[in-house]
Amino acid sequence: MPEKILLQQYRSTRQHSCTLCAPLQTEDYIPQPREFASPPKWHLAHTTWFFEEMVLKVYLNDYQIYHEQFSYLFNSYYHTIGDRAIRTERGAITRPSVKEVYQYREYVDKNIEHLLSNSPNKEILTLVKLGINHEQQHQELLITDLKHTFSLNPIFPVYRSNFNLVKDKNEDSGWLKMEEGIYEIGHNDDSFCYDNEQGMHKVYLHNYQLSKALVTNEEYIEFIEAGGYENFNYWLDEGWNWVQENNIQRPLYWFNIEDKWHFYTLSGLKQIDPEAILAHISYYEAQAFATWKQCRLPTEFEWEAASEKLIYGKRWEWTNSAYLPYPGYKMAAGAVGEYNGKFMINQMVLRGGSVATPANHGRPTYRNFFHPQLQWQFTGIRLAK
Amino acid sequence: MPEKILLQQYRSTRQHSCTLCAPLQTEDYIPQPREFASPPKWHLAHTTWFFEEMVLKVYLNDYQIYHEQFSYLFNSYYHTIGDRAIRTERGAITRPSVKEVYQYREYVDKNIEHLLSNSPNKEILTLVKLGINHEQQHQELLITDLKHTFSLNPIFPVYRSNFNLVKDKNEDSGWLKMEEGIYEIGHNDDSFCYDNEQGMHKVYLHNYQLSKALVTNEEYIEFIEAGGYENFNYWLDEGWNWVQENNIQRPLYWFNIEDKWHFYTLSGLKQIDPEAILAHISYYEAQAFATWKQCRLPTEFEWEAASEKLIYGKRWEWTNSAYLPYPGYKMAAGAVGEYNGKFMINQMVLRGGSVATPANHGRPTYRNFFHPQLQWQFTGIRLAK
Amino acid sequence: MPEKILLQQYRSTRQHSCTLCAPLQTEDYIPQPREFASPPKWHLAHTTWFFEEMVLKVYLNDYQIYHEQFSYLFNSYYHTIGDRAIRTERGAITRPSVKEVYQYREYVDKNIEHLLSNSPNKEILTLVKLGINHEQQHQELLITDLKHTFSLNPIFPVYRSNFNLVKDKNEDSGWLKMEEGIYEIGHNDDSFCYDNEQGMHKVYLHNYQLSKALVTNEEYIEFIEAGGYENFNYWLDEGWNWVQENNIQRPLYWFNIEDKWHFYTLSGLKQIDPEAILAHISYYEAQAFATWKQCRLPTEFEWEAASEKLIYGKRWEWTNSAYLPYPGYKMAAGAVGEYNGKFMINQMVLRGGSVATPANHGRPTYRNFFHPQLQWQFTGIRLAK
Amino acid sequence: MPEKILLQQYRSTRQHSCTLCAPLQTEDYIPQPREFASPPKWHLAHTTWFFEEMVLKVYLNDYQIYHEQFSYLFNSYYHTIGDRAIRTERGAITRPSVKEVYQYREYVDKNIEHLLSNSPNKEILTLVKLGINHEQQHQELLITDLKHTFSLNPIFPVYRSNFNLVKDKNEDSGWLKMEEGIYEIGHNDDSFCYDNEQGMHKVYLHNYQLSKALVTNEEYIEFIEAGGYENFNYWLDEGWNWVQENNIQRPLYWFNIEDKWHFYTLSGLKQIDPEAILAHISYYEAQAFATWKQCRLPTEFEWEAASEKLIYGKRWEWTNSAYLPYPGYKMAAGAVGEYNGKFMINQMVLRGGSVATPANHGRPTYRNFFHPQLQWQFTGIRLAK
Repeated sequence: MPEKILLQQYRSTRQHSCTLCAPLQTEDYIPQPREFASPPKWHLAHTTWFFEEMVLKVYLNDYQIYHEQFSYLFNSYYHTIGDRAIRTERGAITRPSVKEVYQYREYVDKNIEHLLSNSPNKEILTLVKLGINHEQQHQELLITDLKHTFSLNPIFPVYRSNFNLVKDKNEDSGWLKMEEGIYEIGHNDDSFCYDNEQGMHKVYLHNYQLSKALVTNEEYIEFIEAGGYENFNYWLDEGWNWVQENNIQRPLYWFNIEDKWHFYTLSGLKQIDPEAILAHISYYEAQAFATWKQCRLPTEFEWEAASEKLIYGKRWEWTNSAYLPYPGYKMAAGAVGEYNGKFMINQMVLRGGSVATPANHGRPTYRNFFHPQLQWQFTGIRLAK
Repeated sequence: MPEKILLQQYRSTRQHSCTLCAPLQTEDYIPQPREFASPPKWHLAHTTWFFEEMVLKVYLNDYQIYHEQFSYLFNSYYHTIGDRAIRTERGAITRPSVKEVYQYREYVDKNIEHLLSNSPNKEILTLVKLGINHEQQHQELLITDLKHTFSLNPIFPVYRSNFNLVKDKNEDSGWLKMEEGIYEIGHNDDSFCYDNEQGMHKVYLHNYQLSKALVTNEEYIEFIEAGGYENFNYWLDEGWNWVQENNIQRPLYWFNIEDKWHFYTLSGLKQIDPEAILAHISYYEAQAFATWKQCRLPTEFEWEAASEKLIYGKRWEWTNSAYLPYPGYKMAAGAVGEYNGKFMINQMVLRGGSVATPANHGRPTYRNFFHPQLQWQFTGIRLAK
Repeated sequence: MPEKILLQQYRSTRQHSCTLCAPLQTEDYIPQPREFASPPKWHLAHTTWFFEEMVLKVYLNDYQIYHEQFSYLFNSYYHTIGDRAIRTERGAITRPSVKEVYQYREYVDKNIEHLLSNSPNKEILTLVKLGINHEQQHQELLITDLKHTFSLNPIFPVYRSNFNLVKDKNEDSGWLKMEEGIYEIGHNDDSFCYDNEQGMHKVYLHNYQLSKALVTNEEYIEFIEAGGYENFNYWLDEGWNWVQENNIQRPLYWFNIEDKWHFYTLSGLKQIDPEAILAHISYYEAQAFATWKQCRLPTEFEWEAASEKLIYGKRWEWTNSAYLPYPGYKMAAGAVGEYNGKFMINQMVLRGGSVATPANHGRPTYRNFFHPQLQWQFTGIRLAK
Repeated sequence: MPEKILLQQYRSTRQHSCTLCAPLQTEDYIPQPREFASPPKWHLAHTTWFFEEMVLKVYLNDYQIYHEQFSYLFNSYYHTIGDRAIRTERGAITRPSVKEVYQYREYVDKNIEHLLSNSPNKEILTLVKLGINHEQQHQELLITDLKHTFSLNPIFPVYRSNFNLVKDKNEDSGWLKMEEGIYEIGHNDDSFCYDNEQGMHKVYLHNYQLSKALVTNEEYIEFIEAGGYENFNYWLDEGWNWVQENNIQRPLYWFNIEDKWHFYTLSGLKQIDPEAILAHISYYEAQAFATWKQCRLPTEFEWEAASEKLIYGKRWEWTNSAYLPYPGYKMAAGAVGEYNGKFMINQMVLRGGSVATPANHGRPTYRNFFHPQLQWQFTGIRLAK
């Protein structure tokens, strides 16, 4: 019975969020040092609010909402549901306490489990699946946001001593050759996907090659040492402005200490392993590196068409595709419809998933997207030519 | 002989810039009220500098450059050629005078004509063609920038009494149906084109329809009166922020005077003709209008594939395609290579040309591009579904 | 013995900081929602750091500093002591934990008490006195910063149910007349004062009158209802810009709910008592109100000369004096010298003390100072003419 | 007859504005590259508008205003007179032309002369005097604004070949000692003054000394070479931030070319004369220099009390007094009242007048005022101790 499996997935996903927070002290749940980096407490509450707002309030008879104001406090961008707490003020919301947020989670969990145990209809199953995937996305954000907050602390806090996520290496090398022709792109079976993957359609691709390995720290250090950050020829015009105005000279979290490259990891400050895969670069840096290498970044279609033959999942790979709708794309009605479509401007697609992506969350058709200057995700570079 | 034709084109293009400036007073040549709107004097000088820098200095023996510092003053974004005057300071450059800039034009014209009359090689012909097309682009910018400067003056100056460019109407109606299949996109003959149109390639298009008419003022007023600017559901998230932060409530240059819609035109303030074609809207507004109409904007590929059957050239039509390289795109080496490729981020493609585009400048493969919030070009909306 | 009294003062001051924090949850210790509003944890640690840095490290033999990096983390503006954590990032410093900060306090307290119990020299006594006064200042900031953080939370947290600091009323009325003549201004005995009060000097004052009562909520509501925020005539030019750009229409923390004025207090949202004394207004608002009343604000000299006859201490009273040095003012050498003198620009003097000022902290010569747009202190208005 | 003398003054003042503009080309009349630097055309028109608005419209029967919209275009900050063109958009106002502005001047001159020739009443005489002084202020601004605009042009235009205003030297040296006591400050006879000088009053001054000479380039170069711009100890906190954020390393208009100090003057780029008097420094720089010299800046009262014995008029001398009202200060009613009082916040007083101040414009009681970061006036330093 699919609802049993779903219930199982629900439980394990919900539990995983708590497991991720186990090493945190109460203080760590609070800060939002940048607009893009939300507090752990907010992630825990917001993912819970999603189930309450989208599922329980609509489908569970006589459901008593946990607290009237939580819908205001833990909403994110869903304009269709009342006012929203200003996005940049999340760090000021010390109450409800962390403990209360965990109680809120338990309350909602109990009700969702009740609902799933009593012959839920198809709409419920669909929305719970969406809620699970939504929470998985926030699990990755929780980790990347926490890393960012900790990185601003001069004492470089340790999240867990064995949690250096950026020490992994390539398992393949060389170039994958792909043939010219028509390929089918987009999601095409009954399994879960987001609306932005739907609208399976044909694209025509010309001959191309993809690197089987991602760019390593060593290769990127060559770029730095070759003056990559000082030569505008490699950069898009806006990328060059970004470099100049922010005095960018290296990937995020990198430090040059006594002439040795170090970086901040969730296990503290570490010396960089040259053979490990590069992380925390912006699209601008990815594009500049590719130009310096006399290569380019792949399009998202090239990536997806080749995905069966790629070893991926270590870094979100910047593609040279802007985040735009597929043919026939329709936003869902209401708040669920705000999930994806409204962000289809000025962002670039990333493919493949990262070391921080929860297991079973990714798939070849998955379209992640961020603004080109952002570096705080576990982003990397796969070259194309 | 191609060089004779080219010489003819050179002369008429150069003359046309002067003709456009004939109604100006000396004062009008100076201001740069926004970073995007350059002074007429700068346009006249910069297009001249292009011929001097790219052609005369390289190909004409013993060429004496007109003035050492002009290359600094009238360069634009070409990082490869020395320092550049800060883009936002163009309005402070009162010297050289307007008269000197015209003398500079004459000096360069004389030399280019000499060069073209003496068996020019193919590189010269190619660069002069590029320079002509470059100047044609600046002719359009000169008009749109001037309109913007004048629009900021509360006395609404008249450029020419018979120069209301936004009174034109549609000449066709209904929907054009296009069949699914493979189409060839990009430039594919010996005629001039920019590097961003090259790399002719195949794309696969699914069934689609394009409106034969562009959106009119009347239709857009319906959108306004239906609360289009107050309902976030129609807008991209960044579009909605743009609306809120800038208090946008109507297209650029529109004024509501005693309950009647007026707009500023280069012939002064006029009452709006409801049947005329809408102009001066941002991509955000185009996208919101299309959503409200339960339609969408076409991709640039849909547009190009259908272009033979469209009546176009009245407005730059916002497409739903981001400005990105075609397969096989290569930036040219040196300064010429900075022309297009470095802007391939965060901009949307516009197709078709406008009433301000010089005759013979447009073509079906032409890719114009601007940031999604900009309104000062003669931009319009063609719906797709 | 003065050191016994001082030890007593040290203990009670240190204890008072802890008492103020007793109602807090761990979460409340963390946020810094605005640059001006530091976290409670930071206040607790910074005041402790002051004793460690200025006293223990210098005067206690073999003192082991508690943690090397605390001097970096909990320094404020003292440029002379190493690098400093960026002022705006205090909210990201989740580690050390709240508990560790209390341990740090205990460790430093133990050492200071040891030092004070062993025949401390005069420099030590002077610096400990300074540290006590420094901590008292931060006690007031702790309360005002906390109020600001809580006010940003839509659920309006209650700090303590009986802690509405802004319900107090005037105890006197009418005008105090002061005679023309020479008055002595500044600190003039052996008791503690800051360097900015020293340099007792003579000033010549002309006839003036001061209101014995501070402006009440009722009077200020009249100003609002008379269109005070809509009429530029009452405002300084920069004040008017501040009103326009920030859409200021009422004092900070005021809300108009169903046509009744409410405000946020540390006891939660309350209806305003018209007879209570106004609080939380900027200098701009104080000056505009005074102009509307056809009065003016007193200078700090007029205030000090009359202070014996005034009932003060309820609100920090904006004066019409800029914060500038007294004749003969000299900054102390080293870090202590950064305490006051470097802020003598673009700030206005406030006199009198507020309901949040610790007992025995104020005195007639005390010079407080803030930028003219700031509202988050317990500021009020005394009229002069 | 005083009106004859006034008419004479009117004519010569009006003529002087035209004389100052004689070396300009039409293009030079237009730009406003910074908010603080208005175009010459605007200065010419605004000073004329003052006479039309304040005098002719009120006191001349049947006066026909020159152009309805000029009052909108050439108003400055006078909120009481209709809307105003946005301050930062003055550079976009190309029409009316320069020629029309000169015609406007002639028209108003004719009418003012008519009014002054027909038994003007006292109010008229007072306002015309104010208008003359207002125009003199703008003559100085015209020169300093023009210098700023020209300085942004990489070709360093020459205004007049013999117009290097910053080559003058000190004519005295040593220290002037002043006795403690009561001094009278403020304007005290029938001659013209601004409202901010009125309210003659007594101040008590303690012993002080003023340098008879102003700081020279040579002395300031010593400060630079001693690391003055790198050591925060000399700077106010906001001054240090200003240095850091704007990368300030030298006075405005200074350039270090092949290890020699040069500066831009209205006669073009010149090598600096070490013995000439320093110009174009901010209050922050003046204060830092004084601190480095172990001196201080004088208060405006110290300056005025000593003014009889000082050789002044070469540089506007930054004082350590904030711009605040004198005892008994009352803003005049209506637009005239907006002249001075509304700026009494966040600005510092300057005394003495500069090489760009029109003859007969200054006086010992004159209070000039600017924000502490501004450098574009001919500002200098007189030390006190």
